[in-house]
Amino acid sequence: MFDPLSLKYDAAGLIPAIAQDAGTGEVLMMAWMNADAVARTLETGRVTYWSRSRQAFWVKGESSGHVQALVEMRVDCDRDCLLVRVDQTGPACHTNRRSCFYRAVRDGAEVEIMAPMG
Amino acid sequence: MFDPLSLKYDAAGLIPAIAQDAGTGEVLMMAWMNADAVARTLETGRVTYWSRSRQAFWVKGESSGHVQALVEMRVDCDRDCLLVRVDQTGPACHTNRRSCFYRAVRDGAEVEIMAPMG
Repeated sequence: MFDPLSLKYDAAGLIPAIAQDAGTGEVLMMAWMNADAVARTLETGRVTYWSRSRQAFWVKGESSGHVQALVEMRVDCDRDCLLVRVDQTGPACHTNRRSCFYRAVRDGAEVEIMAPMG
Repeated sequence: MFDPLSLKYDAAGLIPAIAQDAGTGEVLMMAWMNADAVARTLETGRVTYWSRSRQAFWVKGESSGHVQALVEMRVDCDRDCLLVRVDQTGPACHTNRRSCFYRAVRDGAEVEIMAPMG
């Protein structure tokens, strides 16, 4: 059985988790999980982070409805980073954009490459 | 002009950088950059991380030849995470696999889903 405690967490007990759209491959966001959030994500199938600002579990989309259904969790070679492949409802970003990575550096300048969803 | 110092770094002066294959969308790895590594990556077009273990710049592929040519750098909404879209030569992972995320949790067990490259 997979044990969340087999992962490597930082001094704050957290591991970075990259959320990727399982269908399109788009990288949606990066947030943090502790061991309990990893376990809850696997148990419930709803991606659950640990909010560093609120110091509380953050069931993605619980208030906004923009949930992430877990398709598959992957573990990296060093066991200190997770990739969660998800089925994302609506925007992943709190700015209402599909992805949090909506700014690009092009020709030395930062430009917005993605509009908020309608 | 884009200023690397406009990003938010952690207490160690680092920001996580997710490397994604610009062609296929595959997430290859996650590593860390400091402000100088961000600047070097943009200046040289060769993705350059900061090695926490060696406390030194880590020009990806410098010894292995498995370089990452920068296609585009993206910044997330909170300015505390980067996405580098790259043209990856060979495997990104030190285990010789294309991606570091070669293990998946399936039916509660951890399984390898990717073989080392030939």
